[in-house]
Amino acid sequence: MRYNIRDTEDSQLTVAVEARWNSLTKPPGSLGQLEKLVLQLALAQGTERPKVARRTMVLFCGDHGVTEEGVSAFPKAVTGQMVANFLRGGAAINVLCKQARMEKLIVDCGVDGVPVAGTVDRWLGRGTANFVKGPAMSGGQVDRALENGAALAQSLDCDVAAVGEMGIGNTTAASALLCAYCGVGAEEAVGAGTGLDEAGMRRKADVVGRGLARHAGVTEAMGILGAFAGFEMATMAGFFLGAAERGMPVVVDGFIASAAALAARAIDPRVMPYLVFSHVSAERPHRRLLAELGVRPVLDLDLRLGEGSGAALAIPILEAAVALYEGMATFGEAGVG
Amino acid sequence: MRYNIRDTEDSQLTVAVEARWNSLTKPPGSLGQLEKLVLQLALAQGTERPKVARRTMVLFCGDHGVTEEGVSAFPKAVTGQMVANFLRGGAAINVLCKQARMEKLIVDCGVDGVPVAGTVDRWLGRGTANFVKGPAMSGGQVDRALENGAALAQSLDCDVAAVGEMGIGNTTAASALLCAYCGVGAEEAVGAGTGLDEAGMRRKADVVGRGLARHAGVTEAMGILGAFAGFEMATMAGFFLGAAERGMPVVVDGFIASAAALAARAIDPRVMPYLVFSHVSAERPHRRLLAELGVRPVLDLDLRLGEGSGAALAIPILEAAVALYEGMATFGEAGVG
Repeated sequence: MRYNIRDTEDSQLTVAVEARWNSLTKPPGSLGQLEKLVLQLALAQGTERPKVARRTMVLFCGDHGVTEEGVSAFPKAVTGQMVANFLRGGAAINVLCKQARMEKLIVDCGVDGVPVAGTVDRWLGRGTANFVKGPAMSGGQVDRALENGAALAQSLDCDVAAVGEMGIGNTTAASALLCAYCGVGAEEAVGAGTGLDEAGMRRKADVVGRGLARHAGVTEAMGILGAFAGFEMATMAGFFLGAAERGMPVVVDGFIASAAALAARAIDPRVMPYLVFSHVSAERPHRRLLAELGVRPVLDLDLRLGEGSGAALAIPILEAAVALYEGMATFGEAGVG
Repeated sequence: MRYNIRDTEDSQLTVAVEARWNSLTKPPGSLGQLEKLVLQLALAQGTERPKVARRTMVLFCGDHGVTEEGVSAFPKAVTGQMVANFLRGGAAINVLCKQARMEKLIVDCGVDGVPVAGTVDRWLGRGTANFVKGPAMSGGQVDRALENGAALAQSLDCDVAAVGEMGIGNTTAASALLCAYCGVGAEEAVGAGTGLDEAGMRRKADVVGRGLARHAGVTEAMGILGAFAGFEMATMAGFFLGAAERGMPVVVDGFIASAAALAARAIDPRVMPYLVFSHVSAERPHRRLLAELGVRPVLDLDLRLGEGSGAALAIPILEAAVALYEGMATFGEAGVG
């Protein structure tokens, strides 16, 4: 494999973390998922004392050629408009990053428009090609996107990263990836996105089905990624792999980010223990996608916004988990029991 | 009814809150439960602009006579030891209140021991009586507990309160309340508490069953409360009712706090819209109890600690929801769409 990812199986570290949890003034295991999250962070960072103090939200943005099939409730131009909204500070993710005290990077992976000052330029084109008519991106673009993402992860100065995305049409691409990687049928793999009605969802399923037929011969991990994914999703997949290489856990947002995780796992399954799945969204196929990944999300709040909103909301939970692990008294110290 | 609780049905306020949400730069409804939480807070506080800036965690503590039946994995003395741990700052809830920037009140409703300096004294006795042998508390104690709780809620200077509890044996009392108020069978109503094994759970179900038989003739809301509840639970029920009277939403912790909510609802069902259910715990019957209440919890993290831990973890979610509602740009401001 191309990636140098450390195996997180470490029984000694696991025993040490669990021993510390069990020394604290609470019934053993009574902090449930919080105890498991700290163990995951510890194994990912390779230390008994994991940190989440320095964190960065990375927003991957890009346009999708498949929008010309009429698969979204919003016009394609909204991608660039929302990038501008991120830069002006008016979007949901701006508010949430402020609440969670996170740095924010907005990465232009291929928005169809004039590059906007303030974004990180990893531009690969004016949006992908329409995957119904041919591959969304070329082999060279797939390689570049993966490299861009991995290099970005390597360059970040933080303890934990979180990811989100913006790209009109990208739930359609994510649905196609769910079908192609997991053998899920198109009808089951599509959701309402930003607000399709029943007829819109049938059209979307039809578009995904035609895309799958067009690329039926493609079975290899990177080939599937190139056939359907957006530039923002492929760059994000590279980011996951690069983060795993350096032992940096990544908090994954919703349906689109989970589809990028599916791609990253197909490329190198050792990436998985480095990913914290923040929430299950209201985008209908997301629950199935998480089940395919075999993961349990931290939150279930019926979000369907993207932008990293669910990932940002999970950060205070991770922070609280680490604070408990660090800050609670032991039974000995407290004279309890 | 004895309580002066405002009906929260206000279609004008509902329309105003939903109109504001729909003006913000996101697909309509895409913030899911966050949008619903803000609406609930708005209706409870009776304002289009709800606040959560000032918040207090109230921890109700008390001992249970039923512990003499051997229903808990920890000895009764742990209640007082944990109260001391709360005061020294070593417990989970201390860490979580600091994380969530909350004030904290520790209310001694009836711990069996010397009153500890630093607690709010609402002491009603050295723990309740064993409900297998007779009523847990007298009618006078029920009245006092409800009054104490309501007065405490009236006196708090905050936008939103959260509640938790400490009381060895109180999952047994909560299970008995679930049975008595909702007709659930004892086997189904008990869980492992702080860590019972299968045999311990069978013994606990037997104890609950004997208590139900002992008080089979009691059907009235306050009578059931007096038959089984702890002082801390009855005081908390009064707190819910008093908070509703003054339009202060309360974030409810886990199984025991939810059982107190069941009692408060039996006394006056208008209390319900003022209660935010923070989480579904790993205490097995909690999911059933929440279903009986007809509510959806904010979090599902397998917690089974009590102390208000789940309520404290939900506070950053409420805070984020209100911040989004207040801080996001509108479509008009952002030039999106």
